[in-house]
Amino acid sequence: MLKAPSEPGIQFSLGELADQLGAELIGDRGSVVSRIGSLDSATPDTISFVSNPRYLAQLATSSAGCVIVSAAHRDAAVSRGATLVASDPYLCFARLTQLWATRRRAAIPSSIHASAVIHPGARLGHHVSVGPLAVIEDAAVIGDGAVIGAQCFVGEGASVGAQTRLAPQVVLGSRCHIGARGVVHGGVVIGSDGFGFAPSGGRWEKIEQLGGVSIGDDVEIGANTCIDRGALDDTVIEDGVKLDNLVQIAHNVHVGAHTAMAGTAAVAGSARIGAHCTLAGGAGVSGHVTLADHVHISARTVATHSILRPGVYTGLFPIDDNASWEKNAATLRQLHRLRDRIRALEKNKEIGTS
Amino acid sequence: MLKAPSEPGIQFSLGELADQLGAELIGDRGSVVSRIGSLDSATPDTISFVSNPRYLAQLATSSAGCVIVSAAHRDAAVSRGATLVASDPYLCFARLTQLWATRRRAAIPSSIHASAVIHPGARLGHHVSVGPLAVIEDAAVIGDGAVIGAQCFVGEGASVGAQTRLAPQVVLGSRCHIGARGVVHGGVVIGSDGFGFAPSGGRWEKIEQLGGVSIGDDVEIGANTCIDRGALDDTVIEDGVKLDNLVQIAHNVHVGAHTAMAGTAAVAGSARIGAHCTLAGGAGVSGHVTLADHVHISARTVATHSILRPGVYTGLFPIDDNASWEKNAATLRQLHRLRDRIRALEKNKEIGTS
Amino acid sequence: MLKAPSEPGIQFSLGELADQLGAELIGDRGSVVSRIGSLDSATPDTISFVSNPRYLAQLATSSAGCVIVSAAHRDAAVSRGATLVASDPYLCFARLTQLWATRRRAAIPSSIHASAVIHPGARLGHHVSVGPLAVIEDAAVIGDGAVIGAQCFVGEGASVGAQTRLAPQVVLGSRCHIGARGVVHGGVVIGSDGFGFAPSGGRWEKIEQLGGVSIGDDVEIGANTCIDRGALDDTVIEDGVKLDNLVQIAHNVHVGAHTAMAGTAAVAGSARIGAHCTLAGGAGVSGHVTLADHVHISARTVATHSILRPGVYTGLFPIDDNASWEKNAATLRQLHRLRDRIRALEKNKEIGTS
Repeated sequence: MLKAPSEPGIQFSLGELADQLGAELIGDRGSVVSRIGSLDSATPDTISFVSNPRYLAQLATSSAGCVIVSAAHRDAAVSRGATLVASDPYLCFARLTQLWATRRRAAIPSSIHASAVIHPGARLGHHVSVGPLAVIEDAAVIGDGAVIGAQCFVGEGASVGAQTRLAPQVVLGSRCHIGARGVVHGGVVIGSDGFGFAPSGGRWEKIEQLGGVSIGDDVEIGANTCIDRGALDDTVIEDGVKLDNLVQIAHNVHVGAHTAMAGTAAVAGSARIGAHCTLAGGAGVSGHVTLADHVHISARTVATHSILRPGVYTGLFPIDDNASWEKNAATLRQLHRLRDRIRALEKNKEIGTS
Repeated sequence: MLKAPSEPGIQFSLGELADQLGAELIGDRGSVVSRIGSLDSATPDTISFVSNPRYLAQLATSSAGCVIVSAAHRDAAVSRGATLVASDPYLCFARLTQLWATRRRAAIPSSIHASAVIHPGARLGHHVSVGPLAVIEDAAVIGDGAVIGAQCFVGEGASVGAQTRLAPQVVLGSRCHIGARGVVHGGVVIGSDGFGFAPSGGRWEKIEQLGGVSIGDDVEIGANTCIDRGALDDTVIEDGVKLDNLVQIAHNVHVGAHTAMAGTAAVAGSARIGAHCTLAGGAGVSGHVTLADHVHISARTVATHSILRPGVYTGLFPIDDNASWEKNAATLRQLHRLRDRIRALEKNKEIGTS
Repeated sequence: MLKAPSEPGIQFSLGELADQLGAELIGDRGSVVSRIGSLDSATPDTISFVSNPRYLAQLATSSAGCVIVSAAHRDAAVSRGATLVASDPYLCFARLTQLWATRRRAAIPSSIHASAVIHPGARLGHHVSVGPLAVIEDAAVIGDGAVIGAQCFVGEGASVGAQTRLAPQVVLGSRCHIGARGVVHGGVVIGSDGFGFAPSGGRWEKIEQLGGVSIGDDVEIGANTCIDRGALDDTVIEDGVKLDNLVQIAHNVHVGAHTAMAGTAAVAGSARIGAHCTLAGGAGVSGHVTLADHVHISARTVATHSILRPGVYTGLFPIDDNASWEKNAATLRQLHRLRDRIRALEKNKEIGTS
């Protein structure tokens, strides 16, 4: 198998990291790390972290050059070498990855590739990057510092907020909008028609989808995810929403702020999902259903009715060896009759004991 | 959040609408509407409709400039203002959206963008539009009035029927065909290889997929949907079929006319689906299964065997709060044994009462 | 409906086929076939095969010019005409399709299309094809004989092994690698960010995904499938893996050699799947779960926990007519209480009989 080449040149001193992460350093400010890694795979040029106490055992034996820990594990960490103490090590690790990525991206100056096809009626902000063979149509607006990846399509009158990055081959349809600091991955289609048809004598008559898509700030959208435009009004994705790959958002759905959906989740038309909800992988929400804030739908579970109380909700057939499943599944199809038989037994018992 | 700009310039007089929709107008033919909207969001320049009696209560208080109703609600509608009476208000609304979309599109003249890469062996009909950076290969045929969106790929010997529109970034593979008046949304892949392999000593030997895809007239295909080419013969999608986003159609599937499939539905190889069927969101059909005409599969339900009688079929684990689900799911794994215990109790009762 | 034009010019003599397939020919070496087809649709210029004894009945009446059979069916086949005898007719058929496809492809000479945007820092091997409007970034490496389809994107430092073919509109992200003899279908996204966020005061803080994707030799990836890059280390797909369409592979997943996944299967982060496994259509694997070698997960079943013994595992709600399902599903929500009622009855019986 091919090996990934090691990244040339990204390195940070521990002092620099302590300053930028707002963490306390116990160790040499001048020591340098050039890699982020797990405790068990760490080398002396690696910075690692402990967020889950389960991995504490690996701490003593890790070869990491520096480890990020919480105050509770400070002594254990210091006894083995350089340590960064942070109030939330996992969050600190997240910000560390951001420092890495920012430096990686800094190597690429913003530029408009000559092969991009940009309509003269489009308006581009300052420091915008447009990749090779991207298309930007009339009246589109691209905010400052935004990145339009190679071969992207930005439709007529669409807008991309400041600092938002579109990976290669994203489609942002006409009159669709995404706010600032967003990330949109490859193959995403925003603004395809909602699935609306009126039945007419055994055929389907198209309801043209005249609305758009309105996406807030700090939204991330995974690869090949689809967000349909609304029938009359907009489909709305509020600030801070995170959608994984291959997610389906139908027309006129409203997704509340900071809600997250894992891969292959699907939301049917006009559903209204609250803020701070999660949909696990492959979870679904039926059409016109409402979920309150802080509702969590488990993997492959479908919210077929509205859920107005926060909590975790599940409906997944448990996995079993195939032979056991066959027996249980067959019995499941007689379950209602089994209940009747239990009732009959209970009634008989009552009669018997009366 | 960014706001969609209001659409400049689309407006219709009520007289014009009555004529084009074949509806009876009670009101001023010269009054103008410039927006379609729901009853509750309507403004005086909005035309709205009542198709569901549930929304009748909103009729009296709506500010809509005109409302489409059936004859049954004529008096209620007329008492509040301008009214269009139609035999099927929902169908009339569908056609109204089409008038809107037609006018919107009319603003864009057909043209072949200079950046498109069109093989000299391709044949293009009259009034064809080809967007920026589209690729059309040798021997492809594009019908009159068809629209090939930006960055689309039309393979060698493929054909697109008259008036069919491909959104940006569609792939229509070599020797694949779509008929007239179709709509194909962004990211669709038609003509990828079917998933066919012969096992050979623990490895998989590829069965090259030599068939094509044959799609009828008036077919709509949602974003990022995949339709594989057949192994030897074609995968077939008949006239009037509507597929939503992220649908999977495997090789050699046959989908009958006017069947509709909602988002993330999936059909395995060589399945044969009748006409006028529906697959709800995430529904599935197993390989080589046959569905008769007018079979309806509910959300997330898999048709694991052939269904030869029209009707609605379901198999979905009901959602519950997680704690209740855990108890019931655990018991489900013992269901067959529970049935045996009921039998034992029944037998015992019989013995007891004999 | 449009008709596929018949393929011009591919034909083989039976002698040529016997030699190339290593099969025994009973018949005229000079006879020619120009089509592969099923027994029932076969014409005299068609070569067909019998791998499943179920289709033996069709053998006598088939018009096929030649039929591939196993030694067991040699006499039955010979009595009707030209016959190729192979130890594994299905495998022989697979290789026959490969001969067909190889000849079809041989008609297309390798070339770099003038409209492709290839960074001067990219390295291309011998006999590489690059389609129209493809983008190949700096430091990318394309192996000998590889085919980069129209409008593909190959990111910075990515690599494509010898003879691997990317269909149109594939995204291979920066620092992602695929080995030799692979096939990647349209719309595939390799190297999108894994879905990783640290919670922070009700918001999600991005964990930048710094790893890559490492894909072995002889891997096939279906249309619109997504493979995320790893958080720190690589997501790994070993040799010979076959993924169908719309499959989701999350970050840091490890898929063992010769494992196959059917359409819309989904694997969550850090799952570790063994070699020679199969995931049927829509099957899933939860995060951090391990599957041993030779584990087979049935359609729509989710492996929510590790499975360390080879076998077939299932968890699918059986389909039923909707009315029956409604009754059984309602009872399912009381299943745990039903168990308690059975226990009570059993206890009562014991008391009664003591």
